[in-house]
Parts: sequence; C-alpha cells; structure tokens
Amino acid sequence: MPVVTNGRLIYVQHPTTHYEPGVHTKYVEEQLDTDTVPLNGGVLIKTLVVSADPYMRYRMRDPNIPHFSPAVVIGQPIDNFVIGTILRSEDPQFAAGDYVSAFSTFETYAVYPGPKELQHFLKYIVKIPKPENLPLSIFLGTCGLPGKTAYSAWKIFGEPKAKTSKTLFVSGAAGPLGTFVVEYAKITSPHLKVIACAGSQQKVDILKSVGADVAFNYKEADVNKVLAENGPIDIYWDNVAGSITDAALQNMNMFGTIIACGAISGASNPKDGAVTNFGLIFQKVITVHGFLYGFGDDAQKALGTFDADIMPLVASGKITSREHRYQGLQEAERALAEVHSGKNVGKSIVIVSHE
Amino acid sequence: MPVVTNGRLIYVQHPTTHYEPGVHTKYVEEQLDTDTVPLNGGVLIKTLVVSADPYMRYRMRDPNIPHFSPAVVIGQPIDNFVIGTILRSEDPQFAAGDYVSAFSTFETYAVYPGPKELQHFLKYIVKIPKPENLPLSIFLGTCGLPGKTAYSAWKIFGEPKAKTSKTLFVSGAAGPLGTFVVEYAKITSPHLKVIACAGSQQKVDILKSVGADVAFNYKEADVNKVLAENGPIDIYWDNVAGSITDAALQNMNMFGTIIACGAISGASNPKDGAVTNFGLIFQKVITVHGFLYGFGDDAQKALGTFDADIMPLVASGKITSREHRYQGLQEAERALAEVHSGKNVGKSIVIVSHE
Repeated sequence: MPVVTNGRLIYVQHPTTHYEPGVHTKYVEEQLDTDTVPLNGGVLIKTLVVSADPYMRYRMRDPNIPHFSPAVVIGQPIDNFVIGTILRSEDPQFAAGDYVSAFSTFETYAVYPGPKELQHFLKYIVKIPKPENLPLSIFLGTCGLPGKTAYSAWKIFGEPKAKTSKTLFVSGAAGPLGTFVVEYAKITSPHLKVIACAGSQQKVDILKSVGADVAFNYKEADVNKVLAENGPIDIYWDNVAGSITDAALQNMNMFGTIIACGAISGASNPKDGAVTNFGLIFQKVITVHGFLYGFGDDAQKALGTFDADIMPLVASGKITSREHRYQGLQEAERALAEVHSGKNVGKSIVIVSHE
Repeated sequence: MPVVTNGRLIYVQHPTTHYEPGVHTKYVEEQLDTDTVPLNGGVLIKTLVVSADPYMRYRMRDPNIPHFSPAVVIGQPIDNFVIGTILRSEDPQFAAGDYVSAFSTFETYAVYPGPKELQHFLKYIVKIPKPENLPLSIFLGTCGLPGKTAYSAWKIFGEPKAKTSKTLFVSGAAGPLGTFVVEYAKITSPHLKVIACAGSQQKVDILKSVGADVAFNYKEADVNKVLAENGPIDIYWDNVAGSITDAALQNMNMFGTIIACGAISGASNPKDGAVTNFGLIFQKVITVHGFLYGFGDDAQKALGTFDADIMPLVASGKITSREHRYQGLQEAERALAEVHSGKNVGKSIVIVSHE
C-alpha cells in the first residue's frame, strides 16, 4: 500500500419498480493510490461498515422528481451513513486513526467530501468514541439514524400522548427503529399495551423478546381482527402505510395520534402504499404527525438529549440491538435489495473492512 | 286543524353504494292530531326548514359498522338539523311560537325528543332569534353546522399556521363550509394566496366571487398542474380525500398543514377516497389535523366565540351565503341524493312549511 484495490458501488440506472442488484447498481473495483489521491482539504476514510436503510429506495429516482432526499447520481457511488477510520487528513478537525460516523460513499476508500455532485444532501462527519462492549456499527443503528429517529419522534409526539393513552400499535416493528420504539415506549410509559407486527415468525419472536404485549405476523394474521381484539389504538406508529395503516385507522380510538415515520409498503410501487381509510382521520378526530429525522426545530432539539437519555440504556441492555451483517462491499447490493423487501432481520449493515 | 297531514321521510334500507330516493328512503304522509299527540315532556315542532348535509351518507349504514355518527334507524324518519317553530310545549324552556334550531326528524310535525331510537346522537334544541335581514335557514348553513365547523377548525389550526404561510388550498370549496373558509381565511390572513376547486363552472364562479385567487374545476383541469403552478401549498383544507388530496400532497410544502374536515369522494365507495400519496406526509413532515364539529375541548371552546366573531361579518355581508332550496318535504330525497353527488350549489335546504 499506497496502491490498493478500491471497491465501489456505482449507481447505474433508475428502477421503476423494485431495485435489482447488477441492474440499477454495479459493483466495481479500481486501483487507488491512498498516498496521492487529492483530498481538497477533506479526509480519506477507510470504510469499515456501511448502512443499508429502507429510505434509500426513494433516492433511486429521476432527479427531476422532487423529494426530501436528493436522488443518487448516475455514474457516482451510492452514499449513505458509514463508519470508518481516517487514513489521511487535510482537515485540522480530524487526524489519522480517528473513528468517524459520516454520510459518505459506498467505497472501500472514500474521499470526504466526495465529488461535488454528492455534496448536496447531508454534510455530516463526526468523530465517535470506540464503545467498550459494543460494535462500532451501533452508530448506524440504535445510536444512528433509526434509533435517533425513533427517540426524537417518540419524545415529541408519543410520550406526551401516552399520558392519556392505553394502547400503542407499531407496524414494521422488527427493524432497528421499530424495536427501539417498542422498548423505549415501555420504558417511558410502562402502562401502555404495545401491539407490534412484522413480516415473519422470526421477526415476531424478536418483537416478543423486546417486550411487545401482542406481536403478530401481518402476512398470516387477520390484521383487522387482531387490532379489533386488542384495540382501540390510541397511538399508531406507522412505518409502512398501505393496508396495515388502513386496518390501524379502522381500529383507532377517537382523538388518536399517528406518528407517520415511514411508508415502506409504497416505496417501490406507490399504489401499494395507498390508504383507503384516509377519511377516518377526520371522522375520528385523529392527528397525524409526519416525522423525518432532524427536520424541524423540535426534532433538532430532541437530538440534543439523545446521548444522555439513551446511551446508559444501551449500555445496560435495556435498549437492545440486532444486526443483519453482510460481509464485503460486494454484498452491499444484496443488502439494499433485502432491506427494501424486508428480508433483513435487524439493522442491515455491510462490513466493508476490518480494522 | 288539529288533524293535519304529516309528511315523513322514512329510512327503509341501507345503500351499499349510492343513495337512491325511493329505494333507501320513502316519503309517506300520515294523519296527525297536533292537539293530542303525546309529547312526553317535550315539544311539538312545526318544521320550517330541514338541512341536507354530505355527512348524512355515513349514517345510512348497518348500525353494527362503527362510526362517529349513529346509523339512521330503519323504519324511523331520517333526522338532522332543522329549523322550526314550537306549536305545543310541555317543556318550560319553550313556548308556542318560539323559533328553534334542533336536531330533529324529517317530519312536517315532529315531536322532540322523538322516538327513543332517535335520541342517541345529538340532543340539541335551542331557541333562535329571528334575524332581521336574513332567512332563518342561515342557522343551518353559515351560522349552523358548516359555518361553525369552518370557523372553529380555521381558528384552531388554520389561523396560527397562516402566520408563516403563503398559500391555502381548499378542496370541495363551493359549499357552505368551503366558501366560509375562503372568505374567513382572507379576513384573518389577507396575505394568503387562496386556491380553491369545485366541480362545475357555476361553482368556480362562486369561488371567484368569494375571493379565491385561483379557482378551478377539478373535473376539467389538470389538478396537479394547477397546484404546481400556484404552489407549493402551505395549508390544505381537505373536504374530499381521494385523488385531489393526492395532488395536494404532491404539491405541498415541507412542514405543511392539512386540516382534514371531510372525505366526500369516498363516502359512497371508500376506494374512491383512497390516498395513494400517504407516504408524503412523513416525507414532507406534514401534520394532518382531523376535525369534527364540536369534538374536543378546543373545538368546544372555539364555538363559544362564534357569535361575537362571525355574526357581524354575516350581517355586513363579508361572509356570504348561497342556498340551494328544495320546496316541500317530498323533495328531501332529491336534496339528499344531490348533496351526496355534489349537484347542489350552495347550502342544501328543504323548505318544509311556511310560517
């Protein structure tokens, strides 16, 4: 080394329905001289772990279609949250050997900030401590985007409403965001009956293990019936939209609250995410709070208390994590495909390099 | 008189899709002795005007289907808001000759409270003054359910949000609730650009006459295009759900507010009210406030300031009214059918008797 093989996951074309590895992205390997690659005042990251998140499907689109997240750029690598170590730095805030959490490219060796086209979204790179008894990848899951999203939306909307509520229903609950909601709701509001659903028996077992009072497989159960038997629902944490949200609306209590945090059922095909019972929102005087990580003053403020509130709970095992690990950047395509179809169990991460 | 002919609109069977006169209801005439009909401590109302409202379609259903409004009862008359005069009274609060606004039966002569089956919903009867330059029926429209709904939801959700907003879009805007919203929004928040739509050229002309900056016929225009040209939308007042709400979501601003006040597109067939873009609620960090007349502390409180805020504006012509009048209780069926299909222009009322 200095000349190394650099794996890169390049975005090739827009999917119209489901994302397909090898079709919409392509994994390539190129030679890179880590000693001489220009940093332009930035840093060179050796990527250790990259995160595959459901929202990434939204970024795979024609850039002319407006969306909160910028489209990924054809011909450029996919980018998202990663964990890495600094190899070289021209930025005085970072030194070789530092561990960082960053919004960076799916490359074994990544210059941050990367190409100008990729500097449009989230300028984000922070030093992270190496945790004692936890993997560094905790900063991609429980202590990263999914955990912080769950924490801040629950803090802002869930916890206050829980004071006058009896039941919480969480859909798409077996992922890192969903299990966080189940566990943290039980910690802050132990009187709540928590109903949770996911798409396989293995995931249902996870829901039970994290404390859901009622856990079911929506692919096999009569969702309406389960909710009718265990409702009415006062708070609905919606990660999915579509038919499960229809059933939730059908079984919500008057004056209920929906925390709308995802709509994965319609991510590949909008029609699958349609909500027929939209009219029940007014008929039941329901409030729906759309929530997006870090957007808005309240969301920013809530992030400020995350470390103090949550790190002790993670350290003591009261908030738990499960990871679905893929080995090698060449597996990132499979990770993306599976996180979009729900085949992953736990936080989906790709181990790119070992330290 | 005392023996009079009493017209009655009887509920006969549940519609599965659209309501049809003569099939789901039946107009009958019976003889009634107004001197001897038992009042059981109540009053005998000579009905002057009855109101036909879109929400009534929800009441025409199997009573086992839960809903905020109770089902109308097969074999009993339809009931809703009416205006009448007292003929006889056993209730010390009312005397013969009083004008009242009440939730009462579609009968020329109605005993209030009526049959026990009909005492399930809204126990409501109040004396009303006879307005000087306005018809008594104003208490069914601008100063009744539609106007008070518009006023209170705008006061609670619209007016505060308007302070940081540029655009308001109102769907189903030509009815008594919609024109109230357009006019009152312009009064409280004159900086707002108000976009409004309805289903005919005649209704579009009404929207223009009440001050909408942009008015269009959703049946002929490309809704998405109109909203894209005039948006982004900061506040969406939704009376319809379905495809118009999809277009609104498509063109809403980040952090937008939806006041969900009706879903008439799905009232007869829920699929027509489906919202495919539900996922945009979280992606744009939108808040949706379901609202139902009088439900909740804030809604009750807002009603308390209605008279002081609104009656002067009605008297001075700053809040205007239009009525679609049907003559005779035998026309109530047509009024109901047309209010459900949007054929009425203005507040739909049926003149039952002249004073």
